[in-house]
Amino acid sequence: MGRIESVQNKQVKEWKKLLTKKGRKKQNKYLIEGLHLVEEAVRAGIEIEHILIREDKLDQYTIKVDQEPENLIIISESVSESLSDSVTEQGIFAVIAQKEEENAIHGNKPVLMLDQVQDPGNLGTLIRTADAAGFEAVIIGEGSVDLYNPKALRSAQGSHFHLPVIHSDLKKWISQFKEKSIPVYGTALDERAVSYHSVEPEQQFALIVGNEGNGVSDELLKETTANLYIPIKGQAESLNVAIAASILMFSLHQ
Amino acid sequence: MGRIESVQNKQVKEWKKLLTKKGRKKQNKYLIEGLHLVEEAVRAGIEIEHILIREDKLDQYTIKVDQEPENLIIISESVSESLSDSVTEQGIFAVIAQKEEENAIHGNKPVLMLDQVQDPGNLGTLIRTADAAGFEAVIIGEGSVDLYNPKALRSAQGSHFHLPVIHSDLKKWISQFKEKSIPVYGTALDERAVSYHSVEPEQQFALIVGNEGNGVSDELLKETTANLYIPIKGQAESLNVAIAASILMFSLHQ
Repeated sequence: MGRIESVQNKQVKEWKKLLTKKGRKKQNKYLIEGLHLVEEAVRAGIEIEHILIREDKLDQYTIKVDQEPENLIIISESVSESLSDSVTEQGIFAVIAQKEEENAIHGNKPVLMLDQVQDPGNLGTLIRTADAAGFEAVIIGEGSVDLYNPKALRSAQGSHFHLPVIHSDLKKWISQFKEKSIPVYGTALDERAVSYHSVEPEQQFALIVGNEGNGVSDELLKETTANLYIPIKGQAESLNVAIAASILMFSLHQ
Repeated sequence: MGRIESVQNKQVKEWKKLLTKKGRKKQNKYLIEGLHLVEEAVRAGIEIEHILIREDKLDQYTIKVDQEPENLIIISESVSESLSDSVTEQGIFAVIAQKEEENAIHGNKPVLMLDQVQDPGNLGTLIRTADAAGFEAVIIGEGSVDLYNPKALRSAQGSHFHLPVIHSDLKKWISQFKEKSIPVYGTALDERAVSYHSVEPEQQFALIVGNEGNGVSDELLKETTANLYIPIKGQAESLNVAIAASILMFSLHQ
């Protein structure tokens, strides 16, 4: 069991870089924070490089996360604060390798695809809701915020340990699903779209939702089997992307 | 057209207090920020006490909000910054009296009731989605974050100008709806609840959703016509309250 006191420690400096996209990309790792997320990772059997626990929380947390002692590192309060992205720092973190299970995605169950979703809270909520709706996987396209963003991970509440979440080229996946005769639904607000009520619930389909301001890009909407919209009854101009996707996921999945 | 340069100005100090719940309660007013919200207020015909515009934005904004000159106040950059709750301050605000249209709520269309919702983003999103789902009104119970919280207003995106949103006693309203034979649905995760699929879509009902951690209070669940849950297919433990409410609102409203 290691012990790190100083924020000047070389390893702490490397971990701190995992709070940025650039640092994560370079190290191919990410950091999760908080007891709930670390417990979810342990429960899911994810390979964990290190679990970091603040010294005053050691007794309380060690029992709950049940790790080999060599994986545990005790950290000081100042190190814990320096690694935290949260306003309610809990004093527990895990360092995990980024592994994306591209080959686990077959379209046997519905798949959610995200085109240029910008808000990390939306991204995380979308993953959590796809999990709850029994989806097979989530595919994050280029130009979206990434799964490993601390706020996205917080909103996902560990659901990325439950189903494959990958970063990939959406066009490639649209082609693959269509080749397998799996319908691919875009979402749009104009004459290119039909009401989601006109589609029967199914066991296999892919659903694409898009950017908070601009929706799904034209380039992708042209490639879909059909594009859907949610009829708005009141005077609201639109729905939040995570809300719209959730209504569609629960309504379309048989 | 008035002009205020100094953050020490007495009126600016009063407006700044509207960023806190205490200040809003004392003055019975609230502040909205950003062009979209101010435009929505003007479009809805809401009585506006003052519109404040940063001096460099005067020409750009004045045309869009079309007000009597005596309602307009030009403010300096420092005043604008001091009143802003947003990271992307736009230099336009409006001061509005709090008026709650309790008598406009009859239950002719569905009504959403919020029990101890804590997160202002959730509260605002719930109001926006109730608007989009064609609901008649939103009733916010005691112990919830209030509508006039700047973050809640931002997430509601002006929907509180489209339908009555009031702060009131939920128990009183449950009784009133039941007296009119309008079904009142609570939401719960345990044996007190039935799947929402077992309820037919209707034109009149009330739906209660609750606190992010604890759900709807036992006290209210005992008073409802029935309590509903959303079956979870994956491994997610629960849904975000705004997501769950949205799925129910769109599914239950005929």
